[in-house]
Amino acid sequence: MTLPEVRLAILAEASFGPLEAKTAVGMLRYRPARVAAVIDSTQAGRTAAQCAGVGGDIPVVASVDEAAALGAGALLIGIAPAGGRLPDSWRPVLRRSLERGWDVISGLHAFLSDDPELSALARAHQAQLHDLRRPPRDLRVALGRASRVDALIVLTVGTDCNSGKMTAALEVQRELVARGLRAAFVATGQTGIVIEGRGTAIDAVPADFVAGAAEALVLEAARDADVVIVEGQGSLFHPGFSGVTLGLLHGACPEALILCHHWGRERLRISSPDVPVPPPVPPLGVVREAYERAASWVRPAPVVAAAVNTRACGEPEARAACSATESELGVPTTDPVRFGAATLADAVAGRRTARGPALPAR
Amino acid sequence: MTLPEVRLAILAEASFGPLEAKTAVGMLRYRPARVAAVIDSTQAGRTAAQCAGVGGDIPVVASVDEAAALGAGALLIGIAPAGGRLPDSWRPVLRRSLERGWDVISGLHAFLSDDPELSALARAHQAQLHDLRRPPRDLRVALGRASRVDALIVLTVGTDCNSGKMTAALEVQRELVARGLRAAFVATGQTGIVIEGRGTAIDAVPADFVAGAAEALVLEAARDADVVIVEGQGSLFHPGFSGVTLGLLHGACPEALILCHHWGRERLRISSPDVPVPPPVPPLGVVREAYERAASWVRPAPVVAAAVNTRACGEPEARAACSATESELGVPTTDPVRFGAATLADAVAGRRTARGPALPAR
Repeated sequence: MTLPEVRLAILAEASFGPLEAKTAVGMLRYRPARVAAVIDSTQAGRTAAQCAGVGGDIPVVASVDEAAALGAGALLIGIAPAGGRLPDSWRPVLRRSLERGWDVISGLHAFLSDDPELSALARAHQAQLHDLRRPPRDLRVALGRASRVDALIVLTVGTDCNSGKMTAALEVQRELVARGLRAAFVATGQTGIVIEGRGTAIDAVPADFVAGAAEALVLEAARDADVVIVEGQGSLFHPGFSGVTLGLLHGACPEALILCHHWGRERLRISSPDVPVPPPVPPLGVVREAYERAASWVRPAPVVAAAVNTRACGEPEARAACSATESELGVPTTDPVRFGAATLADAVAGRRTARGPALPAR
Repeated sequence: MTLPEVRLAILAEASFGPLEAKTAVGMLRYRPARVAAVIDSTQAGRTAAQCAGVGGDIPVVASVDEAAALGAGALLIGIAPAGGRLPDSWRPVLRRSLERGWDVISGLHAFLSDDPELSALARAHQAQLHDLRRPPRDLRVALGRASRVDALIVLTVGTDCNSGKMTAALEVQRELVARGLRAAFVATGQTGIVIEGRGTAIDAVPADFVAGAAEALVLEAARDADVVIVEGQGSLFHPGFSGVTLGLLHGACPEALILCHHWGRERLRISSPDVPVPPPVPPLGVVREAYERAASWVRPAPVVAAAVNTRACGEPEARAACSATESELGVPTTDPVRFGAATLADAVAGRRTARGPALPAR
């Protein structure tokens, strides 16, 4: 997958916030230099930081043309509607982008390149439609091969969807690299793919091949790395996505898990009129036990650390949240965005050292 | 999905046996009147019963033309190569079928209607290509809605792939219907779909929608049934397919499970040179505990009965196998094909009665 080199306008119409706009927030946190503007007409005039807590002074604008004036040359869809279809209200923005000759990058389940109107428009203006969730052609069934690589494989897992699994994985990988270790990040969702420039959106792969897609990503990453940090997906407790979570767990064959939790979230993040009161998020000990149990069905893997998203708290409460989690689970815990990922990296590096030869220096 | 009404030739080339040719065997057991012949040139001249233990005197022939002479008017692909692609060696048989104007019914992951040569040939001869695994257009994310239906939902689960989950589900549903109960069978794989004439191959649905596809099937079946028996898929212990298994479990939201086991199988049925020694099948108690634990993450469901496939044994050993399983698990156990499904139906009907108003008579 080759994404355009130009700076991006990120579409987050009517939804630009820290939780609703995962892809926008991920790009703003990890690739801010690639972002020219965010499009959300309901918040035009504010900065990215004011709306979502990341992205500093990157401006929020109301239209494609305003983003172009700020140097944008392609559009990234930065929000993920449940079900993954293209809302009709976005079409004018996509049309305008393509008319300008911009590439459009999308993580929707509904592929833009299968849309007759948009693909005709792209052809007419020599623009490309990049569907991040399009599965690779070469799909295989997983066979547990990832359990045989020399690299230490670590998977982030969560109490819920949207609990900080991608962020924790990126933060710990960057910290390990900063320490001179050969650590790779494996992107398994559309945001991670845009940030990393490669990966597979495993939630869009035909179900028989979910684990196989994860296995292929891990085998490839392990060729040049001693530690492979895999971005987790979903949650074992989510009625819609647990199959993706387990397929990833059994395909990636991690040897260690990092448990991610959004502090203060009491109920699963299911927004549907059909579920007026979503199920509660289980206690952390129950969640940990579930992941360790499920891992053991193919390859045992303990939870070696925890990452707590304390975005909604003040600092004293954030420190208390980490301490409480650490006491409850008995593993090193931090908020890697707020306090840095050293604690998590220590736990992973220690695990790597404990299991065999020391990590080679660069 | 409307399948052709004519009698079928079932392709099982070089693989017509009780385990290798699941779709062929399923059709021969439950819809023998629809089958004119089986095509396997390596066993031509034998009967179906001699090759696979089902289908009585239905002849095995070497070619499409011989099957046509016996009254066949359409081709069903009766074997499922790992990975689900079309082997080149089958193309001549498919071409010949289409040249005769036969419809071809396929459960492969690779859709025949996406194959340029075959779809052109089908058009030229006014034949149809039926891809049983093509996902429905209207996909939704599961929300646990199936837990709210009035019907008792029962799911068959297995120690491994290919352990008798579809068969147990069909046998118990037929037994319940014979007793005058409104019991529905929900097909979730290609063989069940051909037998039942409807259903969704959930293993081919994009992973985010596996549970949602199961949920939709259950909600539809529950409209006209008091008991819904759902065909299980895969196994929580299979590194390739466990995600499908868990997605189905959490989408269908069963209230009771029937555990299926192929007696005597000691290792998972993984045939790949990459896995010279497949992992062992865990003890039955461990398997039961895993399914009950996994169910509890969304909706608790106990194992209420067990189905043992004793095909490989003589009758005394088969009875001993059922007794041993019954002792080990403490639930009613039988081989529903060999001894009938009364034991399983008793367990299910008892569960239905215990939880509320008695079942309405027809």
